[in-house]
Amino acid sequence: MEHKLEELKARLREIYDLEAIAALLDWDQNTYMPAGGVAARMRQIATLRRLIHEKATDVGLGRLLDALRPYEESLPYDSDEASLIRVARRDYERATKVPADFMAQLSAHASASFQAWTEARPAGDFARVQPYLEKTLDLSRQLAEFFPGYEHIADPLIDLQDYGLRTATVRAIFERLREQLLPIVKAVAARPPVDDSCLYQSFPEQQQLAFTVEVVRRLGYDFTRGRQDKSPHPFTTSFSTGDVRITIRVMENALTAALFSSIHEAGHAMYDQGIDTELEGTPLATGASSSVHESQSRLWENIVGRSKSFWSFFYPRLQELFPEQLGDVSLETFYRAINKVKPSPIRIAADELSYNLHILMRFDLELQMLEGRLSVHELPEAWNARMEEDLGITPASDKDGVLQDVHWYGGMIGGMFHGYALGNILSAQFFDAALRAHPEIIEEMESGHFATLLGWLRENIYRHGRKYTTSELVERITGEGLNIEPYIRYLRKKYGELYGIANF
Amino acid sequence: MEHKLEELKARLREIYDLEAIAALLDWDQNTYMPAGGVAARMRQIATLRRLIHEKATDVGLGRLLDALRPYEESLPYDSDEASLIRVARRDYERATKVPADFMAQLSAHASASFQAWTEARPAGDFARVQPYLEKTLDLSRQLAEFFPGYEHIADPLIDLQDYGLRTATVRAIFERLREQLLPIVKAVAARPPVDDSCLYQSFPEQQQLAFTVEVVRRLGYDFTRGRQDKSPHPFTTSFSTGDVRITIRVMENALTAALFSSIHEAGHAMYDQGIDTELEGTPLATGASSSVHESQSRLWENIVGRSKSFWSFFYPRLQELFPEQLGDVSLETFYRAINKVKPSPIRIAADELSYNLHILMRFDLELQMLEGRLSVHELPEAWNARMEEDLGITPASDKDGVLQDVHWYGGMIGGMFHGYALGNILSAQFFDAALRAHPEIIEEMESGHFATLLGWLRENIYRHGRKYTTSELVERITGEGLNIEPYIRYLRKKYGELYGIANF
Repeated sequence: MEHKLEELKARLREIYDLEAIAALLDWDQNTYMPAGGVAARMRQIATLRRLIHEKATDVGLGRLLDALRPYEESLPYDSDEASLIRVARRDYERATKVPADFMAQLSAHASASFQAWTEARPAGDFARVQPYLEKTLDLSRQLAEFFPGYEHIADPLIDLQDYGLRTATVRAIFERLREQLLPIVKAVAARPPVDDSCLYQSFPEQQQLAFTVEVVRRLGYDFTRGRQDKSPHPFTTSFSTGDVRITIRVMENALTAALFSSIHEAGHAMYDQGIDTELEGTPLATGASSSVHESQSRLWENIVGRSKSFWSFFYPRLQELFPEQLGDVSLETFYRAINKVKPSPIRIAADELSYNLHILMRFDLELQMLEGRLSVHELPEAWNARMEEDLGITPASDKDGVLQDVHWYGGMIGGMFHGYALGNILSAQFFDAALRAHPEIIEEMESGHFATLLGWLRENIYRHGRKYTTSELVERITGEGLNIEPYIRYLRKKYGELYGIANF
Repeated sequence: MEHKLEELKARLREIYDLEAIAALLDWDQNTYMPAGGVAARMRQIATLRRLIHEKATDVGLGRLLDALRPYEESLPYDSDEASLIRVARRDYERATKVPADFMAQLSAHASASFQAWTEARPAGDFARVQPYLEKTLDLSRQLAEFFPGYEHIADPLIDLQDYGLRTATVRAIFERLREQLLPIVKAVAARPPVDDSCLYQSFPEQQQLAFTVEVVRRLGYDFTRGRQDKSPHPFTTSFSTGDVRITIRVMENALTAALFSSIHEAGHAMYDQGIDTELEGTPLATGASSSVHESQSRLWENIVGRSKSFWSFFYPRLQELFPEQLGDVSLETFYRAINKVKPSPIRIAADELSYNLHILMRFDLELQMLEGRLSVHELPEAWNARMEEDLGITPASDKDGVLQDVHWYGGMIGGMFHGYALGNILSAQFFDAALRAHPEIIEEMESGHFATLLGWLRENIYRHGRKYTTSELVERITGEGLNIEPYIRYLRKKYGELYGIANF
């Protein structure tokens, strides 16, 4: 058995390393690659993907996993080795259920669709992408059919992001979340608008970069095992637990772009840096799921990074860096500015509160399309109607409406958005649990110390990597399932204070 | 045949892409990778190398090459397709002659030896590396034995760098070169020393970088298909003909480090950027050999970049950038400073003239060791004696003597150095041929134009990639073989003028 386990680990390590190499190609393409490198880079990535697919679906791997089943069953469920075999089997089954031909077709369609979207979006030309999106919907449904026995057609697609999570569960949670959120957003909208003009001055790039580095280093992002670069769209990528990099976008006329993208990505990155090094080189050396990963970027960005405690420490430092711009702006004014609620047609420009409504809408529209209750050609109208209903705004054109996000145009409908809102819900559940264990966390933040919080997150979430599913993890930590109450409580308290509303 | 050729190209493209990916991993490691990434990076490179070896030695590839032999023979020798099949067969035969086990042993030894060297060098501790070097010598000889039928044991090792080149040929050329060089170096040494203190002032990094970018862009290095970064040791690396990157080292207190490393690497890079895009993705899409590649870095660095014509254009611009440092330094003084001949114990600090003597010594010592006429433990003494004989200096310690270069300590003795001196010889042969075709090149340089020279090099050398061997290429271009006369003529003229010596 020893020998078989070693062989399994060697095979999985090779797949892990090839995945990491593919991630480096992608990082390079988004940071430093000259324009002339595009054609070869696409070929290199395709070559690697083909090799990874071969290795991940090799029958020898399947036989090993079968042979190791009795050994796995003899071990505790959450031992490293049982978890390794369990998760590797899950990946293998997923990979082998979908024929290579279909994956190639999906991938080719994804490229063509993405290309069409890059042309359609600036022009607000939905008709341009409609046939692509229709095919995407068709392929997404076909993909689901490779996993028969589902309750809801979206289940297999959500499962790809959050193993074991059901559409029915998410839908029920999101319905309650929307019920609770709408009155809060409406009450806040009725209050006088906040002046956030202090954020929109000229902030030289070099100082912004220096500040973000200082902030995320203090939060606990380890620069000896990572680095921060600029890219058109911020992201986090991991080549090993020893090399987890973040990228940010800097806007000289808007202070928040670099700042919050840096904290957001550092949240993802501290998760990956916190994975037990014993899991290095295995499929366990990544986050539990897309929603748990998002819970960490959100926890650090919003619950920590947009809190009064955080800024009572960092704001004087920010004022020192930008004396002309912020010298006369009070902490209170700044704090209110970075938390200003103002419904926007654009998801990524949305405030913490209304952001969720963008996600819930996308989730519902995905389901309606997959269920066959909404045709692709009806999508723009449905989108705009829901925006009006939930946020009281109608996008000026499809450019700022149904065409704004790349997700559906990158080749898949289903499972693309739920993680963003689940991440918010989970961030509050986890932060609550951390506070129960360490009430001193708030005071520590006020003095610029984050080690207790980070230590708790590492101990309870990060080190486990992908051992547990989303549900298992939240159950282990909170003793209950997914629950919106902590998040709603957090929002009511914060925005009640900010907008002087005693009762929503 | 069509189908077989397509299959061959697909296999070769995969190998090419995997090699390019390995090169990216290396580039990243030398430029931006955080320290924490080292362990995984070594694993990733080993994984890729293993895959490349599998693909490069696959019996299916061998069968294809056999099947394509009649087709190859039906085509003109220098057609793209005949060349592709010919060069691919050469690579395949080389790769399959050496057992994978031996390669693994060599590679493991190379790592261990390199590690020992990094510790031994700062301490000048030759005894520390002696046993490693003895094993390296042994393995190098064993490697040669996998290619039976050689004339000289170094032949197969030189052949790895310069296909078809024999030890006897190189030895004869180098003996004549040394005979001619020694009197020139001695005559120059007898002249009053040149004052080059203008180069050793404080030159802020940002301006140095800006200047190097301006220079190499004007020479013809295409930044849309490349970029320049900093690294501890300058190098050029190519991920496709559309993405050829250079790195340089900047020293704030020595102007020449960044400047000439940038021009040197740009010479390599313009070669790779000039390869016919039709050859992209094949084993032909690289330089002809290590010596031809070096001829291009040397041609641009020395013949162009250290010429009076070049500086009559660029020096005023350099003075503008550094008015305090160079405002009062005349072009003549600067030109003499960058061409100062001053024998140094260190190869990479050597001037254009004495540099060659460093290489000839290393070449001779390699042969003596491979022939069994020199034991590893006698190497430091032999090194120092030759330095004294040729340059009149003895290194203060082995740190600045036999331990200074990584080459032998990276796992191989034989074929490591000859390319540097052959490159010098070839640079003059090629430049002479270019001048014969376009005498206006000199005047164009004086007005900052290099397109005629670059165009000629592209047409005659770069576009062909690896179609021709070193000898074939020099024969095609000059109508003769390797010949030191143009190089000696160039040195006599340049250093005769610089040092006021009418007759060497």
